[in-house]
Parts: sequence; structure tokens; C-alpha cells
Amino acid sequence: MVDIVHRVGIKAPISKVYAGLSTIEGLAGWWTRTTTGSAKVGGTIVFRFLTEKGDEVGVMEMDVLEQVPDRKVRWRVKSGPAEWVGTHIEFTLSQQGDYTIVLFGHRDWREEVEFTAHCTTKWATFLLSLRDLVETGQGKPAPDDIRISDWH
Amino acid sequence: MVDIVHRVGIKAPISKVYAGLSTIEGLAGWWTRTTTGSAKVGGTIVFRFLTEKGDEVGVMEMDVLEQVPDRKVRWRVKSGPAEWVGTHIEFTLSQQGDYTIVLFGHRDWREEVEFTAHCTTKWATFLLSLRDLVETGQGKPAPDDIRISDWH
Repeated sequence: MVDIVHRVGIKAPISKVYAGLSTIEGLAGWWTRTTTGSAKVGGTIVFRFLTEKGDEVGVMEMDVLEQVPDRKVRWRVKSGPAEWVGTHIEFTLSQQGDYTIVLFGHRDWREEVEFTAHCTTKWATFLLSLRDLVETGQGKPAPDDIRISDWH
Repeated sequence: MVDIVHRVGIKAPISKVYAGLSTIEGLAGWWTRTTTGSAKVGGTIVFRFLTEKGDEVGVMEMDVLEQVPDRKVRWRVKSGPAEWVGTHIEFTLSQQGDYTIVLFGHRDWREEVEFTAHCTTKWATFLLSLRDLVETGQGKPAPDDIRISDWH
């Protein structure tokens, strides 16, 4: 199995970072504005990606497997890009001095393909969007996300 | 073995991107300003990382294994952080419409550790620094690199 991992530090209390990962409003503030569903364990979160004009370019559904307050969130991809279905996404939080450290994993890809590389880079920009949201109140969720290539 | 992979698109001719990866001047423009040595096959490149005040915080040496003009660059880490020694770093270029696509690999880590996650995120910021250098003439090499956490 192939895993994508990232580590980002956010200068904010752990509870603020956890809110950004465990609520629909929080997720909509850094990943995609059109986030709906239930972010509680047993629920399903629906992430819709639109162009600036409002055309849908993608939808992903995640089953929420785990929510440990101020500690961990874990999802399983229920639908979305073929390479993503069945993979797991996790955020593990800890406090290190002034920083809340986010250890991110997008795990259990069946194989490394070019899309894995794209998603690795794109996740970095979204995790820095999470940081901006928590530190400044303003993230860069889709469709205002940072473009990294022809694949967006 | 554990691999870090990224994919970034740069709106510039492939030869300009290749120059950023295959010359000391190019590398100094996006990774660390204090880059010296020989970037030719058989040579060794020395990447020194300094604080803004000029104190050294790290040094890495890379043996250049491969240079295929406008196509590929590949190094082996000779010295640096213990986790990096013996790993391989590669940049593979291709043209896709208006973009030069950089497929990046930092391969053959012995195991996934927290430092792997840090380096994955940090590589994303440096690859976007390479993009900025090539597209605008101005990258963000150390010590002006984007800080992502307590680990810098």
C-alpha cells in the first residue's frame, strides 16, 4: 500500500484546529466551500468541488470512522476518484510548544500513480489553507484553492 | 521502501525548468541560496542551509547520478540528515500543453517517520518555489523559505 503523509504546525490551540477538522463549517473553510453531510462518527461527509462559475468538477463522500476530541479524525473514502475509493484519511493532533502539530495521512492507495503525486502536492496546499483558516480566519478552500498544474 | 512523490506544473518552456534543476545557479534560486559544488554527472552538489543571520542549520551533499537534458535529473544523498543518507531524489520533466510537468520523487526512505511527513510538506513548498522562480524570476529559497511548523 502507498501512503501520503504530511506534517504542518499551526500556532493556535488544539481545540481550534480540531474544530476545523471535525465540523462541516470547519472543513468548508479550508478544503471546499461546498461541504455538507454529517461529520460525526457513523455519518458521511459530502465534499463537492465546483468551478468559480458553479459547475461541478468532482464529488467525494467520506464515511467518518473516528473522532477523538482534540486528538484524531479518521475517514474512509466511500466514493470519489477511483484511486481514492477505499483509502483512509486521518488527521492526528498534538501540542508541541506554541504549535498544534497536524500529522496527516492519506493511506492505503493501491499503487503509486501520477495522480498520487498530484494529490500529495495538493494536500500540502490544503493543509496550509487549514493553517491559514485557523490562524487568520481565512483559508483557501475550493474554488479559491491554489492551482498547482494543468490538473488544477 | 517509502517514497515521497509530487507533481507540479510550470507555465514555461521545459528548458527553463531543466536549468533550474541542473545548474548550481538554478538550484540556489529555489532551494537554498548557499548551493555550491558541481551539478554535472559524477559531481557532488553541496546544499547548505543558513538562518537569516548566517548560522548554519544543516548541510546536505548529493552525488549527481543522472542528467538527461530537458528530461531528468537524479541524485543520491551522500550526507545530511540520517534518514536521508542513501535515498534518491529525482525530477522527471515532460510537456503537457502549456505546462512543463515536474514529477518529483524522494525515494527509498528506510521507513516512514514523522520527519518523512515534514519533508513531504516542505518539498511541496520548495517545488512551488521552483515554479515561482521559473515563472517570475523570484523563488523562495532558504533562508526565505516558507515556514511550515516548529521544525521550520
